[in-house]
Amino acid sequence: MRTALAIGDAGGVGPELAAMLLAHEDMRNRDVIVVGDAQVLKMGMKHAGVDFDLTIIPADQIGGTLPADKVMVDLANCPVEALALGNSSAKAGAASLQNFAAVLRLAQAGLADAVMFTPFNKHSMRLARPEYVDEIGFIDTVLESGRSGREFNVLEEVWNARVTSHIPLRKVADALSIERILASIKLTAEVMEGAGKKAPRIGVAALNPHAGDGRNFGDEDEDIILPAVDLAVAEGLNVKGPIPSDTVFVRATRGEFDAVLTMYHDQGQIAMKLMGFDRGVTLIAGYGFPIVTPAHGTAFDIAGQGKADLGATLQAAKLGHDLAKLNLAREAYIPLQASWATEAVRERGMAAE
Amino acid sequence: MRTALAIGDAGGVGPELAAMLLAHEDMRNRDVIVVGDAQVLKMGMKHAGVDFDLTIIPADQIGGTLPADKVMVDLANCPVEALALGNSSAKAGAASLQNFAAVLRLAQAGLADAVMFTPFNKHSMRLARPEYVDEIGFIDTVLESGRSGREFNVLEEVWNARVTSHIPLRKVADALSIERILASIKLTAEVMEGAGKKAPRIGVAALNPHAGDGRNFGDEDEDIILPAVDLAVAEGLNVKGPIPSDTVFVRATRGEFDAVLTMYHDQGQIAMKLMGFDRGVTLIAGYGFPIVTPAHGTAFDIAGQGKADLGATLQAAKLGHDLAKLNLAREAYIPLQASWATEAVRERGMAAE
Repeated sequence: MRTALAIGDAGGVGPELAAMLLAHEDMRNRDVIVVGDAQVLKMGMKHAGVDFDLTIIPADQIGGTLPADKVMVDLANCPVEALALGNSSAKAGAASLQNFAAVLRLAQAGLADAVMFTPFNKHSMRLARPEYVDEIGFIDTVLESGRSGREFNVLEEVWNARVTSHIPLRKVADALSIERILASIKLTAEVMEGAGKKAPRIGVAALNPHAGDGRNFGDEDEDIILPAVDLAVAEGLNVKGPIPSDTVFVRATRGEFDAVLTMYHDQGQIAMKLMGFDRGVTLIAGYGFPIVTPAHGTAFDIAGQGKADLGATLQAAKLGHDLAKLNLAREAYIPLQASWATEAVRERGMAAE
Repeated sequence: MRTALAIGDAGGVGPELAAMLLAHEDMRNRDVIVVGDAQVLKMGMKHAGVDFDLTIIPADQIGGTLPADKVMVDLANCPVEALALGNSSAKAGAASLQNFAAVLRLAQAGLADAVMFTPFNKHSMRLARPEYVDEIGFIDTVLESGRSGREFNVLEEVWNARVTSHIPLRKVADALSIERILASIKLTAEVMEGAGKKAPRIGVAALNPHAGDGRNFGDEDEDIILPAVDLAVAEGLNVKGPIPSDTVFVRATRGEFDAVLTMYHDQGQIAMKLMGFDRGVTLIAGYGFPIVTPAHGTAFDIAGQGKADLGATLQAAKLGHDLAKLNLAREAYIPLQASWATEAVRERGMAAE
């Protein structure tokens, strides 16, 4: 069981969190392949006040088997002397993207069982690559995946998965379908089972106020969400809904649900952030291997001070490890190409229409 | 300064809360006109373990002036012997509607300065009047008001007002306009000033995830919300936005905002209910007099046991009193008609198209 760890934005707390994690006793017997700039990791070790040795392996020598314990692929892609700690930069953004793409390819090649990254900075990534929208779009591009993954927000007390995510609110209602909601319920149940939550109790949020209030405020709750829940129940899943979205999280915090499936981004995020999601974990599932990261950001205001809290990062590592056996939708392993560690995104021909 | 108090659903905790409130020392020097069934109030006194005298005035003797302190108009509209405590019923619903309409007309006639009610039950009201949708629609009908009021959710730490409310989510984006948002911001500021919050700091929630993320996920945040906020700032109001809706409440709880203006129902309700809004107050403003009620419901499970917590009801009474001088959009007083206390809603001819 090996985790591929991408060092996050070098201007933020990513390097020191990576260093703290690798030095932590909970990681003592874990196999990890770290991808990033070795000098950036060294800087992180200094900021965090930790020290350890790491075998560095050249990218072109990464092959069929890897040594146990902890190794690093040094991409030498982010010179520390040019780095402005506490700021976004195209340099750090480009390095983040390269690190991220490389760990994804390691997992795709079967050389890692879980992917993890310390916080990225979206602004840095856009400085390097203006068309960058979100992690899922990038992962799809790198893996050339026909099936998109789903993001889960994981707090100890409740998980949140969503049916739609980074789309305008006006497009949410039309993006919903019985099939899509049913698939989301099933993926949520599968992933939680994989994480050790047997027969997870899932509350499905309604779309409209008061769950449509008997069709007074919209029909989707009756026509789309309810049939999807009924189908899931008929398949033996432990699902309830649609539940008005202003009470489903209150009920979850009282212990009624292990997970809440929301219909759109803010419906879940409003609740999760109020509940302290910054101490939680973001999980992206559906690619055959788990992708995990702490939910908080680069925390530029405290970067380089060794003050960053390792809690969420440790939880992310644990969740990634626990889920690593999860083999959803895993296709055949795709061997590494020569450029696996250097190209963030491969140039491709035009897709046939 | 006089409050007109409608007794809420007789099957719930409304009667005992009304009794506790009238007996409470904070109300000692307050003028109140109670409207409802005197036997229901007596039952509430018994359940609450309180006792007091109340002058009962026949409805047809309510005129230009009212005696000070506490009086009651007994509508004798809800026989207690037929009452099923802890259940919704058409009888209790019809009485609630009649009580509500009557107190609204008292305020409209200038005989009360604030309107208050203990919890109604929507299901009871619909049993009595199937087309009942929500309080604001009913108020508009009773007052024959050309301008609808707005609902505010009031917690000690933060107020929430919303631009749209009981409409399907798919219709929210098209219901927004610069004018409507600006009017909501101004009404929020006016009402809060009236409640003693000078120069309230208002955070305006974005519509789309990440406030549209630079138009990646929708244009309304840039094209509609931002210009409305700019206009409000130009008028000297203390307003910020659009702020991603998953962080605006977190920032408010940290003390940055006195109020959050949300674009749709659940955007605010998800947050307020997690923050404990059941201990808060619902305020409907914009009719020239405040209308207040505790945010919690009829609590059928504990009805008649004297266990109901008076906290939110007391806070509602205080807010109504504090806001009673607020004279927004108050038109000329409309004298009571003979049927003021008996007709829930007047029959009217068809409106000219």
